[in-house]
Amino acid sequence: MAKQPQTAISPTRAENYPEWYQQVVKAADLAENSDVRGCMVIKPWGFAIWENIQRRLDAMFKATGHENAYFPLFIPMSFLEKEAEHVEGFAKECAVVTHHRLEPDGKGGLRPAPSAQLEEPLIVRPTSETIIGATFARWVQSYRDLPILINQWANVVRWELRTRLFLRTTEFLWQEGHTVHATADEAREETMRILDLYADFAEHTMAMPVIKGEKTVGERFPGAVSTYAIEALMQDRKALQAGTSHFLGQNFARAQQIKFQDANGKEEYAWTTSWGVSTRLVGGLIMTHGDDDGLVLPPKLAPAHVVIMPIYRNEDEKADVLAYCARLEQDLSAQTYAGEPVRVRIDNRDIRGGEKKWQWVKKGVPLRVEIGPRDVANAAVFVARRDVAEKGQSWPREKLVHNVAKTLDEIQHALLARATKLRDDSTARIDSLAEFEKFFTPKNQENPEIHGGLAYSHFVESPEMDEKLTALKVTIRCIPLGAPKEPGKCIFTGQPSTRRGVFAKAY
Amino acid sequence: MAKQPQTAISPTRAENYPEWYQQVVKAADLAENSDVRGCMVIKPWGFAIWENIQRRLDAMFKATGHENAYFPLFIPMSFLEKEAEHVEGFAKECAVVTHHRLEPDGKGGLRPAPSAQLEEPLIVRPTSETIIGATFARWVQSYRDLPILINQWANVVRWELRTRLFLRTTEFLWQEGHTVHATADEAREETMRILDLYADFAEHTMAMPVIKGEKTVGERFPGAVSTYAIEALMQDRKALQAGTSHFLGQNFARAQQIKFQDANGKEEYAWTTSWGVSTRLVGGLIMTHGDDDGLVLPPKLAPAHVVIMPIYRNEDEKADVLAYCARLEQDLSAQTYAGEPVRVRIDNRDIRGGEKKWQWVKKGVPLRVEIGPRDVANAAVFVARRDVAEKGQSWPREKLVHNVAKTLDEIQHALLARATKLRDDSTARIDSLAEFEKFFTPKNQENPEIHGGLAYSHFVESPEMDEKLTALKVTIRCIPLGAPKEPGKCIFTGQPSTRRGVFAKAY
Repeated sequence: MAKQPQTAISPTRAENYPEWYQQVVKAADLAENSDVRGCMVIKPWGFAIWENIQRRLDAMFKATGHENAYFPLFIPMSFLEKEAEHVEGFAKECAVVTHHRLEPDGKGGLRPAPSAQLEEPLIVRPTSETIIGATFARWVQSYRDLPILINQWANVVRWELRTRLFLRTTEFLWQEGHTVHATADEAREETMRILDLYADFAEHTMAMPVIKGEKTVGERFPGAVSTYAIEALMQDRKALQAGTSHFLGQNFARAQQIKFQDANGKEEYAWTTSWGVSTRLVGGLIMTHGDDDGLVLPPKLAPAHVVIMPIYRNEDEKADVLAYCARLEQDLSAQTYAGEPVRVRIDNRDIRGGEKKWQWVKKGVPLRVEIGPRDVANAAVFVARRDVAEKGQSWPREKLVHNVAKTLDEIQHALLARATKLRDDSTARIDSLAEFEKFFTPKNQENPEIHGGLAYSHFVESPEMDEKLTALKVTIRCIPLGAPKEPGKCIFTGQPSTRRGVFAKAY
Repeated sequence: MAKQPQTAISPTRAENYPEWYQQVVKAADLAENSDVRGCMVIKPWGFAIWENIQRRLDAMFKATGHENAYFPLFIPMSFLEKEAEHVEGFAKECAVVTHHRLEPDGKGGLRPAPSAQLEEPLIVRPTSETIIGATFARWVQSYRDLPILINQWANVVRWELRTRLFLRTTEFLWQEGHTVHATADEAREETMRILDLYADFAEHTMAMPVIKGEKTVGERFPGAVSTYAIEALMQDRKALQAGTSHFLGQNFARAQQIKFQDANGKEEYAWTTSWGVSTRLVGGLIMTHGDDDGLVLPPKLAPAHVVIMPIYRNEDEKADVLAYCARLEQDLSAQTYAGEPVRVRIDNRDIRGGEKKWQWVKKGVPLRVEIGPRDVANAAVFVARRDVAEKGQSWPREKLVHNVAKTLDEIQHALLARATKLRDDSTARIDSLAEFEKFFTPKNQENPEIHGGLAYSHFVESPEMDEKLTALKVTIRCIPLGAPKEPGKCIFTGQPSTRRGVFAKAY
């Protein structure tokens, strides 16, 4: 029997998926744990991916009429008391500021100064509906002031017990949209516009297929009337909630007194929405495309599209090879991919060629180009794609220059196709509880993480369903939008049901 | 006597400068106080200016080899205890997190849960030398790992007693660069490279002339070996420290144990720098260019370069005028100014033309264009520049399209020239204490804010000087770089001195 090929990441996905994830994050130099419990350091390569996510999402928000603004990091404790469901959902896990000064503790160290205790504690924002709502209450007087379409890029803090880099951290980076409308219809339209925008971004920028759906009552954002989400399937067949869009009705408007005079001079509460995606998307990216050699980046988000590695043995060769690489970089950078200049790096570090190559493999750069003296002589380049297992092939230089954007686009599409196939292959319509239980039983006891995937089943929310799901560690992800009504029976209780939900184990 | 022309902002700069500032911030819709003491809400127009500052500075950082990353919001209290001078400088004014959960207080409200008290309090970063240094200590092993050139865009918190929008707020946004080098020379070079970069940005992007200089011992960043700053002069003749660059020597490397093996295998402490600018720059922008009609924006940072205001009386005219405006917007947007597409807005809101015009005047848009039916008929546009007091003039449409970039550039240069003239007119070489005292005495008792400006005087740091300066509310801003050595006498003590310092009242 042939020997298993060695992989750059150990363990492999099949061997131990959670550990594989940690090792990819490390090998690609994306992030690390910090000295502060649950908070991460996002390293330059990981942060550059987040910057690309930000830049593209930001352009989409602006193209749909949203403006950025910035609101305080702190929320007075009393603000959280105003929306009962909201505080229930968030107060349990937050950083509380109680003092505004340190003083010597008399033992050579420091302590919070008792004389500097705040009259009202401040909460580090876990989300900003309350503080932004209080501001909007000042901004809105008349229907003429509406709609208000605001987005904020910010850090937020939720005190998490168990954390995992990018997927669940005490502090994380995100954007939070907050909008105010004169009518329920307009607010609902906004909620769906953003859900569509998120889905579009996930599929066409991240190459990560998603299901758009509504959350059930039990999974709603605390204080929302309806919560919608995009759900993606990771390679361990677990679902990842990748973005949410909430129709808040008049709940927060009532709590924060966001009122306006309509065209007839009548005072009414406004209708609000909120929506967000976070650095969790980087985790989704890793788990959607990564392989046993490390990260695989969709070109639209790759900090570098092409890395050029010069190879030479002496000073004579060096001069020729480097000059050739510099010209190649220039010509490639003059090309445009997905509306931006092609991003090229030359890696001329003095380290072994093999090590250098594997560093870029692990970092997921879409195209690696090696240039040696023979390539210079033949006007050739040696090109390897990251998305396919290949040693690479020699191309005429001009072929690479002229086809670089096309090749990146092929990679982008190949990644989406591959992820979509896995998702579809891991999706089943399931009509009995026995089948459902089997579906969510790990295929392989040595790797309990990997199981069936997404089950579309009839259901009616009930304590019986919740109990069964808790036992199986399965959750209902959403009720997919646009699915045709279909009569059936709840697989948990036998009650009549009109639509299927999507069930999965989830992050 | 002719009546004083009415101004959009009341009071005027001459009448009451601090109040004028607050009114400009309000009239231009830049920011407002929030419900959290000392924290501001940055409104869309103000935030768009900050985004432009960010985008252009970020490109300059990246062009000089820096990469962005992100570090925790929180700093363990013990980290602040490690660098004695640093804690002395920052511990007095910080937000201290002591609990990680709220619970019902039994009276219908909430309280920090006593069971959720942190073992070690966390400080909301006032600056990140300590937490980033601790991370760098893990990243640096060998001289091959150096230099490390990192920048972070982040929010920071310093508990300020008296706050003023943009200029001094409890929470503010900034960038903080942190670099590690193998030698003192390299670290000093980096410190100066960034000082030059900041000065370049201030002068050529903000159109705000600055003096580059070194801070005296008493004004140094706590823990730094040398602190350099760029200092600008505001229209009330007060100085504004607009950016700082610190050579930290090995102080933080020792405190945080940032060590490396040099080429000979010898372990050494590294040399570090840090540097930053903040949302305070927006305050500097307002006070450098604003006039009695409100904000005046340097084109390179204006969220909109051109605002087009259609004027029509009926539906027939409306169709023609709007179509003409749309084509004009398209043609103007296709032009490039300062490396970016010209930013154009059509303001078709249904409000009075005069009110609309004054809103854009107060917001400081460089070019206002009014289009009525007669302009459509004549292929004309009515153009007014914000930087000069003019009603505007009629131009052929094509003249505007072809000259828009050139005109914006003229405005950019005119603003720099005007600010430079004020700075130079407000600068004096002063060689006696009597003259010095007179220079810093308000010219007009009704407006005590406005006085002389920048005094270049000989000095030797001493308690006598500090005492005199405190009495006059004057500070030494910096020792200007590049000034020739010049023998003289300290104006405070008569001691021999070799160089002049720059003295000013300051923000």
